Amino acid sequence: MVDLYAQRGYGARKVGFGRKPGLVVVDFQAGFTDPAAPMGGAPMVDAACARTADLMRAAKAAGVPIVACVIGFDSPAAVPHWKVGPVHDLITGTPGTALDPRIAAAGPDVVLTKTAPSIFFGTPAGAILTREGVDTVIVTGCITSGCVRASIIDAFSLGLRVQVPEDCVGDHDRAAHDQNLTDVGRRYADVIDAEAAIAALETFARQNDRA
Amino acid sequence: MVDLYAQRGYGARKVGFGRKPGLVVVDFQAGFTDPAAPMGGAPMVDAACARTADLMRAAKAAGVPIVACVIGFDSPAAVPHWKVGPVHDLITGTPGTALDPRIAAAGPDVVLTKTAPSIFFGTPAGAILTREGVDTVIVTGCITSGCVRASIIDAFSLGLRVQVPEDCVGDHDRAAHDQNLTDVGRRYADVIDAEAAIAALETFARQNDRA
Amino acid sequence: MVDLYAQRGYGARKVGFGRKPGLVVVDFQAGFTDPAAPMGGAPMVDAACARTADLMRAAKAAGVPIVACVIGFDSPAAVPHWKVGPVHDLITGTPGTALDPRIAAAGPDVVLTKTAPSIFFGTPAGAILTREGVDTVIVTGCITSGCVRASIIDAFSLGLRVQVPEDCVGDHDRAAHDQNLTDVGRRYADVIDAEAAIAALETFARQNDRA
Amino acid sequence: MVDLYAQRGYGARKVGFGRKPGLVVVDFQAGFTDPAAPMGGAPMVDAACARTADLMRAAKAAGVPIVACVIGFDSPAAVPHWKVGPVHDLITGTPGTALDPRIAAAGPDVVLTKTAPSIFFGTPAGAILTREGVDTVIVTGCITSGCVRASIIDAFSLGLRVQVPEDCVGDHDRAAHDQNLTDVGRRYADVIDAEAAIAALETFARQNDRA
Repeated sequence: MVDLYAQRGYGARKVGFGRKPGLVVVDFQAGFTDPAAPMGGAPMVDAACARTADLMRAAKAAGVPIVACVIGFDSPAAVPHWKVGPVHDLITGTPGTALDPRIAAAGPDVVLTKTAPSIFFGTPAGAILTREGVDTVIVTGCITSGCVRASIIDAFSLGLRVQVPEDCVGDHDRAAHDQNLTDVGRRYADVIDAEAAIAALETFARQNDRA
Repeated sequence: MVDLYAQRGYGARKVGFGRKPGLVVVDFQAGFTDPAAPMGGAPMVDAACARTADLMRAAKAAGVPIVACVIGFDSPAAVPHWKVGPVHDLITGTPGTALDPRIAAAGPDVVLTKTAPSIFFGTPAGAILTREGVDTVIVTGCITSGCVRASIIDAFSLGLRVQVPEDCVGDHDRAAHDQNLTDVGRRYADVIDAEAAIAALETFARQNDRA
Repeated sequence: MVDLYAQRGYGARKVGFGRKPGLVVVDFQAGFTDPAAPMGGAPMVDAACARTADLMRAAKAAGVPIVACVIGFDSPAAVPHWKVGPVHDLITGTPGTALDPRIAAAGPDVVLTKTAPSIFFGTPAGAILTREGVDTVIVTGCITSGCVRASIIDAFSLGLRVQVPEDCVGDHDRAAHDQNLTDVGRRYADVIDAEAAIAALETFARQNDRA
Repeated sequence: MVDLYAQRGYGARKVGFGRKPGLVVVDFQAGFTDPAAPMGGAPMVDAACARTADLMRAAKAAGVPIVACVIGFDSPAAVPHWKVGPVHDLITGTPGTALDPRIAAAGPDVVLTKTAPSIFFGTPAGAILTREGVDTVIVTGCITSGCVRASIIDAFSLGLRVQVPEDCVGDHDRAAHDQNLTDVGRRYADVIDAEAAIAALETFARQNDRA
């Protein structure tokens, strides 16, 4: 089967890691990770959340900044035209907006609240990474075909190098997950795995120690 | 087959048209619409471009603002980490950055140049629509699984109602096109067709005449 | 004395009110309005806060959306390079981040937390106003020569019509207040007073009732 | 005379240079630097432009990226509610949008076109600096009390360290210039001079050579 994208130059370049990585953790909140929540119960999301906690521990050991976020609204007046019913119930302070305990325990440096899909839209996430001198961002979270996809696009647009460990992002269904990783892997980001991300964090820590 | 997304509340709401529509036209430029260009030659893109020109004529007749864009870079220093090889050649003024003649002939009100996937990122597109009082945006262009997807997410995030006529957006391959429209149709936008969009523009024009 | 700005065309146009106004209320929080706080004690800020509460009541009566904000940081990692010492202490949840009781009592529709000077930077304020169809924004708050100035610039840049009631914005010192209102009044916004803003809100309400 | 700002903690911290500087050059275009243009003829602007060209040469020698911009509009539909009459005539391609020859000769890496006061609003300037790993930005240009002020606020908000050489920014009138530098020097930026900026660029170049 001919890959029309490869034929037309998609995926022709690699991104790679730059000088300093940062980690973003998108929407691992009870609304998605609690099996009892209306949007909860996806095994891929649960596995990605657990694996992201491992990655966060490696980031902390390496002195790499971690910015997490949840979807939350100060009031219904702050909700854009979401077609997903249960998203409208994520009013700040309700149970669905609580960070997953595994993510909270791993200790993000900052936890932001957002109203839109991307962790960078309507938040200071980009400014926080800029202040830290980050040029490479590792994107984790849920849902791959929703807020993760949006966050990857924005990170790329902001001029950052983007790395996506596929076992640290999760979706309700495998087909949507796969298509979205293929889409972004051709254009904006390197699709790697948590093991490779952890190795890169360790390399960064060693170089930093020497400097 | 169970639709896990519908089960979890995705697509539970409809967006609809609001008070005033605007039209955005993403990347119908020679780099994608000229069959001889490295990224050109996709029949879906060609068809979407022709159908978008029809929609533009209806928008002009209805007094609805049209904002088009092309990817273009002032110099290589302005290019983010695109993995698509031929995108790096889209330096402003080179043939690949020319608006498709069908789109140019239909007369967009503004033509913007952008460096990132979304027509709204690093451009005044949002400000132009706000100044015009637009609350609903019809998104057309190419590529569905790239810059169109990104533009839809941003339009939604900006608080706009988003309508996507599926015959006015095109891709290299049908599977990516379909998955992306499914993704956004569950979350951010109504997926319609050009005929429905033209009907909505005519309704707007009639209401405007009465007001 | 020759006004070089007027001579060169500054202030040659008027902005006016458009179709639908919105109200933003910048940083009337204890950190600035409590006389005991390190940055508190400015009589102009106190007076502007009281007058803004009047304006908010008029906005609510007219069905006009009100978006308020406070400066606040989830953690020190979220603070940009502020040169103002006490700003660094405005960690979310500390007393200085509480909305002034007069503003809270007047019932803003949304209260946002921001890290930068402008109410629009790193927040969904723009998206909220867009969803409401707002094309004109009345800017109130403190400090005129700081976060108010920044919010006015952003509102203008976003394509909105900007109105600034000078008795609803306050500063530590009159000279900085005056120069900043002169600067923005020449370029971006109409400088009015609360009485004129209330009259415009009442006109809007009457037109809305008829429609 | 008591400085109420200093008393309340303004200016209590210094920003300093970080790891890597970048240079932005705001609106040194014929519309402001040509004495015959409606907004031209300010001696401070002329002097600031000449001194900025010196600074650009030092930046190039040091391998520091330079992003310049001009105000320009693709069509009248792209103009926000500017109150400055002659700004509405700055349609892209007209003489007023040409970069000043001294700035053009000094060779900026990228020249952007913007519609709003800040070089960062509706442009990829931030992304370009991020891709270059810049954490400190030197802001030059005109007019101090307009587009320079706006660019400083945005640079600060984006998480960058901001340095403003006062002899590289110019205004129509000294009082507005001074008040605006005082405002930003208390809050967002170090106000320095070109000599200090050039020394910092040379220090950066030496450190870079050793690394």
